[in-house]
Amino acid sequence: MGSQTNSLGENYTKELEITTTKMTVKRILGLVMDNIDGDDERKREVISLGIGDPTAHSCFHTTDAAKEAVVETLLLDKFNGYSSTGGLPITRKAIASYLSRDLCDDLSPEDVYITVGCTQAIEISISILAKQNSNILLPRPGYPTYALCANYRNVEVRYYDLVPEKNWEVNLEAIEGLADQNTIAIVIINPGNPCGNVYSYDHLEKIAETAKRVKTLVIADEVYGHLAFGETPFISMGLFSSITPVLTLGSLSKRWLIPGWRLGWFVINDPNCTFKSPKVIERINKYLDICASATTFIQAAVPKIIKNTKEDFFRNTLKMLKKNSDLCYEKILEIPCINCPFKSQGSMVVMVKIITTLLQDISDDMDFCFKLAREESVILLPGTAMGLKNWVRITFAVEPSCLEEGLKRLKSFCLRHSKPKK
Amino acid sequence: MGSQTNSLGENYTKELEITTTKMTVKRILGLVMDNIDGDDERKREVISLGIGDPTAHSCFHTTDAAKEAVVETLLLDKFNGYSSTGGLPITRKAIASYLSRDLCDDLSPEDVYITVGCTQAIEISISILAKQNSNILLPRPGYPTYALCANYRNVEVRYYDLVPEKNWEVNLEAIEGLADQNTIAIVIINPGNPCGNVYSYDHLEKIAETAKRVKTLVIADEVYGHLAFGETPFISMGLFSSITPVLTLGSLSKRWLIPGWRLGWFVINDPNCTFKSPKVIERINKYLDICASATTFIQAAVPKIIKNTKEDFFRNTLKMLKKNSDLCYEKILEIPCINCPFKSQGSMVVMVKIITTLLQDISDDMDFCFKLAREESVILLPGTAMGLKNWVRITFAVEPSCLEEGLKRLKSFCLRHSKPKK
Repeated sequence: MGSQTNSLGENYTKELEITTTKMTVKRILGLVMDNIDGDDERKREVISLGIGDPTAHSCFHTTDAAKEAVVETLLLDKFNGYSSTGGLPITRKAIASYLSRDLCDDLSPEDVYITVGCTQAIEISISILAKQNSNILLPRPGYPTYALCANYRNVEVRYYDLVPEKNWEVNLEAIEGLADQNTIAIVIINPGNPCGNVYSYDHLEKIAETAKRVKTLVIADEVYGHLAFGETPFISMGLFSSITPVLTLGSLSKRWLIPGWRLGWFVINDPNCTFKSPKVIERINKYLDICASATTFIQAAVPKIIKNTKEDFFRNTLKMLKKNSDLCYEKILEIPCINCPFKSQGSMVVMVKIITTLLQDISDDMDFCFKLAREESVILLPGTAMGLKNWVRITFAVEPSCLEEGLKRLKSFCLRHSKPKK
Repeated sequence: MGSQTNSLGENYTKELEITTTKMTVKRILGLVMDNIDGDDERKREVISLGIGDPTAHSCFHTTDAAKEAVVETLLLDKFNGYSSTGGLPITRKAIASYLSRDLCDDLSPEDVYITVGCTQAIEISISILAKQNSNILLPRPGYPTYALCANYRNVEVRYYDLVPEKNWEVNLEAIEGLADQNTIAIVIINPGNPCGNVYSYDHLEKIAETAKRVKTLVIADEVYGHLAFGETPFISMGLFSSITPVLTLGSLSKRWLIPGWRLGWFVINDPNCTFKSPKVIERINKYLDICASATTFIQAAVPKIIKNTKEDFFRNTLKMLKKNSDLCYEKILEIPCINCPFKSQGSMVVMVKIITTLLQDISDDMDFCFKLAREESVILLPGTAMGLKNWVRITFAVEPSCLEEGLKRLKSFCLRHSKPKK
């Protein structure tokens, strides 16, 4: 049962592809949760290091400035009606100016489309690009919603690998081999989910140049934008949009710790107008016409949310994430049968490899997570959910005490399941 | 130029179908707005009787109870995270119990899926029903988002007529002629948009029986549910779901006057489980997995919004709508070249026929609305947007003074453009 090899290439099976293109993170976590033993005799609390939603932990609550801005627009009675297609003009303007801080050329408000969180931004970007016989290049490991959306739009999914030995950089040669004239986009996620990597200026430039060579554009998922706490600073892919057009997807969800507010964006970075044309804009607007839009009073609050949020709030989040990432990395060093080739430098997650050959009675990552849930009431996300078998994703955006307890239980679990030394 | 005939059948042209399946109400209103003369020498304010969003008028502001409920859940810091697929359990439960008041059998919370307004409920219902070579029966006149969604999902649109002489009832014989084994649903909108009709118990029962005979289900758009102020009370189509399955779409938008809050639902009324099966539920959940969800703290406020809203608030809205509907009907009687065969009894709108033969230099409804905007700064929705040429839709959910002024200008316009009597 299960694969006993650990190299990326060999791990990849057709069966795995089928699973990951059919299930979201939420669904796979549901399967893991089903293994929790309601009658845990030690009555321990469930520790969830599975989903990227830190809002359950008071140290990761949003800033009062954001809530105050929303209360204000809600009570004004001016923003209870429908918003315009693409978003309220004041919201588009505020996001354009917020994102332009990271770019050479200023974005215009018309380049920005407000969406119902980043989920809708993904759905829209794939829907407007989809055409007959098209394909899209997705990272492996990556975020499964891309593949699910592509399947619904009959866009063929082609995976390129991220290389753990090279800080989860994109295998650029693979891209050149996979792309053809029907490739609608290369998707990158930076800061990375599920790997916690942050791409350097040079690497991003190379990605843009590769995309240009294969004549396609880049979809840059920057939902974790600015959540970089390692040595590499966060650089927006939009900076390279003069090389090839970049569609930037993002949201307030992660940086402001408000995933439930559902305020995201889809932005066209294309200073040379190689992609942007009246026809494309018309296509986008037509599609948006049938799409649900973000809550109007939250849209209206965006200018104040951005203006009134203090740097301290962001600094504090980064400080906590860095502390937890360090803690996670150090504790994992002490746990047998798993290892972490790359310490997370961004987002809220890290990938950890399961050395199945050192474990007894654990067939693969799904089995690992199921048994861990059952025996230790700890939830991790199986790598299979992200396209990488025999890895697990750990979300460390939780209270430090919770993280410590979770890793302690993970250690007991691994010790108990280690093969006896010969 | 333009059609000179007024009967429903003859008015219908291929060109019209193309227009209406390609544009939303918002878009067509945008075209009308483009005709507003910025240099109106009389400096009159623009009067918009175009869109069904009454929130710009203080007499149609929502209740404080709703806003207070949302402020409370927002400030709790408990509902800033992701919601579960299909909606928060407390929200599904609250909507199930709210809707069950109008039904014989209680809905279970699992029958209710929370959506990003009714727009997403439409999109989801069509997406989950769509299959190869399928078709859907839509009312003419009707709400164009259905046709737009069907087009995106490659579902063929077949229009059945609503009969103005019979209070805009469904032409049931037409349904029997149009439906075949590939018909995925009959869509009805009750209370009606754009006609302001409210269907009787008997008519709804006949619709259900017709749907059963042609072996399909009913999608009942009840976004204007309970906004009935005439002689016919609002009856939920779900009451007839033992005859044929009913998918009920609705939202808080209209009854609570909060279209920008984006809180809607998609409900399976199917006590005999002829449609509902584990496979269908799986299909819905899978589709919802890639869909954006409604704002979590608004979802969390729903139980209190429903519980704390006083009957007075609803009564007051109905009173104002009735008053405006009456005013509208009476004033139109005094205007030449247009007539209103049916006084609105529900929703916020009414359809008015343009007698093009009595007008000079007006070719059709688009031309009528364009010139009305230019000359009188009054916005109406051309019937073409709803599939009915040479009619206009008037939204009367505005301040009464605003409605009076708008109708006064409409009268001057019609007088000015009347053909001279021979």
